[in-house]
Amino acid sequence: MNALILAAHGSRKALSNDEVMNLADKLSDVSKESYPIVAGAFLELAEPSIEDAIANCINLGANKVVVLPYFLNSGRHAAEDIPNIVNAAKQQYPQVEFVVAPHLGSSEKMLDLLVAAAGTALN
Amino acid sequence: MNALILAAHGSRKALSNDEVMNLADKLSDVSKESYPIVAGAFLELAEPSIEDAIANCINLGANKVVVLPYFLNSGRHAAEDIPNIVNAAKQQYPQVEFVVAPHLGSSEKMLDLLVAAAGTALN
Repeated sequence: MNALILAAHGSRKALSNDEVMNLADKLSDVSKESYPIVAGAFLELAEPSIEDAIANCINLGANKVVVLPYFLNSGRHAAEDIPNIVNAAKQQYPQVEFVVAPHLGSSEKMLDLLVAAAGTALN
Repeated sequence: MNALILAAHGSRKALSNDEVMNLADKLSDVSKESYPIVAGAFLELAEPSIEDAIANCINLGANKVVVLPYFLNSGRHAAEDIPNIVNAAKQQYPQVEFVVAPHLGSSEKMLDLLVAAAGTALN
């Protein structure tokens, strides 16, 4: 069973964290076939941590965990911190397959999203 | 003439800033009809500043400047800092129309982007 973790930075503003959790909920609604389990998680400043989310997914029966960094650029958090957390999880749960997806900013669809946002601003 | 400013946070890592400028270049390539001028800019830690980018767009002939916050959540930067910069620019350039677009994380297409990224991770 596949699990997807939307891994955001985390903010001191509850509203920002709520946005991530709401997005994870919507993602869950539309991804049930591919990902029966979808969770939001935070690198710092908010709960649940990515580690806790991984443990929870595995408790729920996941044998493949995809971590999707909700980051726009390839800074330290997306390039090092999240892969480090996932590498530690691989040691802890050798029976589980882990994938770290590319950070969002590298998505080919990001340009489409920007074009749409720029177009909306002119209306 | 419309100008579009892709306004990112800015990073100490040159690679992250380069990603933003490259994205602005691609955006320019595909948006020439709506936006003859497209520029990348940074709130802090990198150049050009948003203020400088606004001045440059106006020097190039823009009479409408859309600032698109390249931020995933509605934290202080997207909700306060960028609108404050744009409000100051409105005072400085009363002949120019300014629009602050919603931050990217609020885009309806963000869910599509996440679904695509999550799907790619399973391939």
